[in-house]
Order: sequence, then structure tokens, then C-alpha cells
Amino acid sequence: MRNMTEEEWRAFVLEGTRTGKVAVVRPDGRPHVTPVWITLDGDDLAFTTYHKGVKARALRENPHIAICVEDDDPPFSFVSIEGEATLVDDPAESRRIATIVGGRYMGAGRAEEFGARNGVPGEYVVRVAIKKVVAQADLADW
Amino acid sequence: MRNMTEEEWRAFVLEGTRTGKVAVVRPDGRPHVTPVWITLDGDDLAFTTYHKGVKARALRENPHIAICVEDDDPPFSFVSIEGEATLVDDPAESRRIATIVGGRYMGAGRAEEFGARNGVPGEYVVRVAIKKVVAQADLADW
Repeated sequence: MRNMTEEEWRAFVLEGTRTGKVAVVRPDGRPHVTPVWITLDGDDLAFTTYHKGVKARALRENPHIAICVEDDDPPFSFVSIEGEATLVDDPAESRRIATIVGGRYMGAGRAEEFGARNGVPGEYVVRVAIKKVVAQADLADW
Repeated sequence: MRNMTEEEWRAFVLEGTRTGKVAVVRPDGRPHVTPVWITLDGDDLAFTTYHKGVKARALRENPHIAICVEDDDPPFSFVSIEGEATLVDDPAESRRIATIVGGRYMGAGRAEEFGARNGVPGEYVVRVAIKKVVAQADLADW
């Protein structure tokens, strides 16, 4: 096992169609984790989410968030990011981020379609100010 | 998108080297999510963890746990499991579970090695009583 440099983990997070497994905490203390289409945007991690969904409702009460990006083929590598989330209610910004992630996960030819579909009122951008990163490569090489 | 049957999601969770992205909540309310080598054991989901690690310490205070298993190649599928965790301090049981997951993720030839390495005092079994499952296949087929 070895730790990745910042340059490495940033490239790892953005490679291919790797998703972010986004963990939030509901007001009653139960964790929730689901795969999300993400990008890095400046210094922050960003994605869009519906304002009435579990993630948005949880983050309004507790902005702490954790995101895991992984390569689950041997020898296994992962990046775990923790930080605080800000919800941005701005359809133009949602469209911008959704277009980036649409291109990433669905292919460049469908980026605009995905941006238009998610750049709508009620779809928020979640911006994560990154506070802590654990980035380990080749875990099974012992 | 379509929902998986129970038979389907159980097979999905156990397929190949897919890991469980395990989310727990620290006592201060921050979520923590990391990839874990898991199995299904009877009705429960199970894995081993070190008793002084973040997961064990968090689960002692708050047994609520969420686990995401995913196929992040298009068209994208995932299973999200939520439940309550019990920590089992029994090296024989840790060895049994660690042998199963060692075989799963490292190959049958290394199962015993992994079992011996993790079937030791201080390595606990986490048993998750499954309360809720969301299992969605082919998310990008819209």
C-alpha cells in the first residue's frame, strides 16, 4: 500500500466513470450512502442533487459529508474525502455542473442533454470544501 | 432504471470483487465512508474490522450503518443497504469471516492466509442486520 500525492488523487477521482459514494447523516443519526456523479471544480468537489432528496435534506441539518472514490479491481485503491457541504440554489450553476458531469459519465455527446435536464429550479449544486483526504493505492500489495 | 429482486441484489452484492462502501457516523456527527471487503452471511451482511479503528469506535456509539455496493460502468447499478451493526469479539468467528472474504477478494489460494491474519484478538466481526435495501439496475437507461 502507498499513499497518493495530491496530483495523483485528483487524477484518480476524475478518471473514467468512477463515481463518488456520498455519505451524509440524517437528522436521526442514520448514515445514508449512494453513488453520485461528481467532479472537482476549483478546490471543491461538486455535484448536483434534488432539493427534496435525502442528501439535500440531510445536508441542510448537518453539512458534514464524506465521499469515497474507488478502484475495486485488485490490488484496490481508494480516495476518501471529507468536508463541509454548501447547497447552491442557482439553476445556471446547476446546469454548468450537470453539463460537466453529464459529459464525464454519459459521454461528451450527451453533456448538454444532461445539463439541460438538471439545470432546473429545485436541482441544487452541492459544493464540498475539502477538509481531509485519505488516498491509498494498491492496498492488497502486502 | 429498474429495481432488482432480492435474489438479484444478493447476487449483485456477492459478484466478483465488488466492495462495500461502508458509512458510519462518528460521535461528533461527521460521516465516514471507506471500501470494505464484505460478504453475506445468512440474513446478515458481515465483515471484520479492527476494534480501535474508526468504524468500530463509531459503531459502538451509533450502530446505524449504511453500505453501498456498485457497478460504476455504464449503465450503472447499485445496491444500498441500511441496518444496525453488532460488534462480535470472537477470534474464531473473525477467522471464519476473514477466510470467506479473503477467498472472495484475494482468490481461493489466499483465503486461509487472510483468515489467519485477521482471525486474531482485537479484530471484530461486524454483523449488519439488514433493515432497508434500495437496489437499482441500469440507472442511465432513460
